[in-house]
Amino acid sequence: MYQALKQRVLDANLKLPKYGLVTFTWGNVSEIDRELGVIAIKPSGVEYDVMTVDHIVVVDLAGNQLEGTLNPSSDTATHLELYKAFPNIGGVVHTHSRSATIWAQAGIDIPALGTTHADYFYGDIPCTRKLSQAEIREEYEKNTGLVIIEEFAQRKVDPKAVPSVIVSGHAPFSWGKDAIDAVHNAVVLEEISAMALATRSLNSGIKIQPELSDKHYLRKHGENAYYGQR
Amino acid sequence: MYQALKQRVLDANLKLPKYGLVTFTWGNVSEIDRELGVIAIKPSGVEYDVMTVDHIVVVDLAGNQLEGTLNPSSDTATHLELYKAFPNIGGVVHTHSRSATIWAQAGIDIPALGTTHADYFYGDIPCTRKLSQAEIREEYEKNTGLVIIEEFAQRKVDPKAVPSVIVSGHAPFSWGKDAIDAVHNAVVLEEISAMALATRSLNSGIKIQPELSDKHYLRKHGENAYYGQR
Amino acid sequence: MYQALKQRVLDANLKLPKYGLVTFTWGNVSEIDRELGVIAIKPSGVEYDVMTVDHIVVVDLAGNQLEGTLNPSSDTATHLELYKAFPNIGGVVHTHSRSATIWAQAGIDIPALGTTHADYFYGDIPCTRKLSQAEIREEYEKNTGLVIIEEFAQRKVDPKAVPSVIVSGHAPFSWGKDAIDAVHNAVVLEEISAMALATRSLNSGIKIQPELSDKHYLRKHGENAYYGQR
Amino acid sequence: MYQALKQRVLDANLKLPKYGLVTFTWGNVSEIDRELGVIAIKPSGVEYDVMTVDHIVVVDLAGNQLEGTLNPSSDTATHLELYKAFPNIGGVVHTHSRSATIWAQAGIDIPALGTTHADYFYGDIPCTRKLSQAEIREEYEKNTGLVIIEEFAQRKVDPKAVPSVIVSGHAPFSWGKDAIDAVHNAVVLEEISAMALATRSLNSGIKIQPELSDKHYLRKHGENAYYGQR
Repeated sequence: MYQALKQRVLDANLKLPKYGLVTFTWGNVSEIDRELGVIAIKPSGVEYDVMTVDHIVVVDLAGNQLEGTLNPSSDTATHLELYKAFPNIGGVVHTHSRSATIWAQAGIDIPALGTTHADYFYGDIPCTRKLSQAEIREEYEKNTGLVIIEEFAQRKVDPKAVPSVIVSGHAPFSWGKDAIDAVHNAVVLEEISAMALATRSLNSGIKIQPELSDKHYLRKHGENAYYGQR
Repeated sequence: MYQALKQRVLDANLKLPKYGLVTFTWGNVSEIDRELGVIAIKPSGVEYDVMTVDHIVVVDLAGNQLEGTLNPSSDTATHLELYKAFPNIGGVVHTHSRSATIWAQAGIDIPALGTTHADYFYGDIPCTRKLSQAEIREEYEKNTGLVIIEEFAQRKVDPKAVPSVIVSGHAPFSWGKDAIDAVHNAVVLEEISAMALATRSLNSGIKIQPELSDKHYLRKHGENAYYGQR
Repeated sequence: MYQALKQRVLDANLKLPKYGLVTFTWGNVSEIDRELGVIAIKPSGVEYDVMTVDHIVVVDLAGNQLEGTLNPSSDTATHLELYKAFPNIGGVVHTHSRSATIWAQAGIDIPALGTTHADYFYGDIPCTRKLSQAEIREEYEKNTGLVIIEEFAQRKVDPKAVPSVIVSGHAPFSWGKDAIDAVHNAVVLEEISAMALATRSLNSGIKIQPELSDKHYLRKHGENAYYGQR
Repeated sequence: MYQALKQRVLDANLKLPKYGLVTFTWGNVSEIDRELGVIAIKPSGVEYDVMTVDHIVVVDLAGNQLEGTLNPSSDTATHLELYKAFPNIGGVVHTHSRSATIWAQAGIDIPALGTTHADYFYGDIPCTRKLSQAEIREEYEKNTGLVIIEEFAQRKVDPKAVPSVIVSGHAPFSWGKDAIDAVHNAVVLEEISAMALATRSLNSGIKIQPELSDKHYLRKHGENAYYGQR
């Protein structure tokens, strides 16, 4: 019943090792079918090189398992919160990709420093606040989602315009219109994270010009976008 | 009619992923046929692994599209300005290669620090000034070209002796006698940018000896060059 | 007689070049059969691409060679001490993997800075004290093991909860329930070492929240672990 | 007549791209036949992927070309000086490998910081003084060799115990008992150069314990060496 959705989610998960975003079984990608109200997601702890479409798990928005015999990713509750709070997103990915994780560990927003960033992200990429002891102790994965949502709400950041976040002390989450698009954004996030690290070591106070950020973001994503084929 | 030119431009574009200079569809290479007054260039937003010679777009120096059904690279206007202002160049390439982009984001010239640099570039590689708000708002890509040209004119730098530039807050452009030669210079630019980052972190005030720069540049490119086979 | 053990040790050794943990013949992996009281280990100075199961050397816990015509790894005495002192470990690996070695050379514990670390290591990864001149002069490899054991004892660190160490001025050792598991931990060690280097350069005082470390370590390794398939 | 020598030199040159030590045609390896008094060396500016044994050039110790129709490497005169001054070496290699070149550009000796270094190099790897304007202007490549030799003589460093040097503002040279051994040392040099960069950024004053350096160097290279198979 969910075969096409599961196949897309498998394909998107297999992009993670291809793009060098994961070590071992780290990382997970999901996609939502909003009409059916179901999410397909990677199983927990399965190696990428033996993963098949039958391993992909389907759950509903309350987290009930509808298909698949394996446990879903232990981060499933985070994905569910993001889908519920961000109605325009169709895919979510979590990795521990090296450079984005470095910024998350440092607890510092990834600053917008150039047009590579601006082509995909409209402004700095937020680092969440730390979770409280209570938030960590109970329903940790769900609370990780809630803290991300809180960060975007408080900063009035549109998750469509900034399709990634780093969770303090942890690692990044990215999203997109579907699973493959989420992975695409995760690849870009890793590249701009690496660039930002070295840029700041060369010039600690530098920021992108706001009008340059506007130009690059809007020529790709704005109403009058003229990048690519239309 | 432009088949050979288009094939060379396709081949040069396909070198970008081969040399690790690009992520996804980022980057673009063009070549000019000065007799015919036409430029062949990569289409905008097409994946490298499906790109064929039929995707390559041909435009004249005024930017009119002569061949190809896809939109040319959104950076075409920058290429055109460079071809018009620098009469000795035959190929242009734009990438967001990591280390060169880091220097561009930092807004700092890439300093000549050793013979690897001097073998290809005669002196520091300029970082342009920032574009003004007006230059960004209208004809941004054309103005990017004009700011590069202004930088070389004001510094009295010969674009043949320094076949690369970094645009402040953005990324590098390189050029050469043809498309493949431009890509060759882009590869070297990336390597020396990476070396310069770490060299300056070890020894912040270091510069190459001017006479060593002269020697290495001129033994390859001077009148009495003796490097390679002649 | 020890064919299966030797095959597992060969397989684990061949993972070292696969995961990019070694240059040339550097590095060695062993596994113990605690019932038989024997250890299989890589021979000294043999290239990975010609290594076969017949090259693997079997020794007893006193270091007497039981099988194999080649000399065992020159680090065999270190492995033996670790097996004798840490009764729960089944495999040991030594590499000079780049980032972990950098921390060893700097003589600084690898700090726990994020959940990637906490998923595998419960707290900082100790750097041993320097060996004395006498410890270096005689029975150096045995003393390397003894200094590791002393470090864990003095700090009251459980080698099962922190399955790696860095030896001051030298390089890392990792261990696990068998040879493959030890190599798995060595791969993670290298990744978190690289992340920690850059994290500290961004934010020199940062540490992981203790409750986040607890959560991630215990959701994978605690009594009520819920990560992966069970 | 020199077929076997030329084949060994070809094989050693082809290791340079394999080990990631070179970009394009950068780098060159030679080997000497001391009985015949001839040196085989890479031709100048030939791509590695089309290089055949017939491209390898043979010269005598005075630099006279005995075999081959192509020009020898432009660095041949440096190789000749090293062979004449260091009677125990049989192979020489020059690269612009990234991390070693960074130290050369910074003009700083590569410090001995750990056992990875000590396994191959007995003490710091010297950075030469700068060449004078006169030394650069005339017979530059020969003078590069002479400055290396001067550095080892003045510091009383045995070129067999420290089989590499970095030339100030330029790049490394390595040597060994034959061409392949020289390349082997160049690979190690690159690895320890990368490690030393990050080690010093973590702990700027650190040095290896002298007795640890002795132990590791001598257990591999001393009279009573016990590393590897004998």
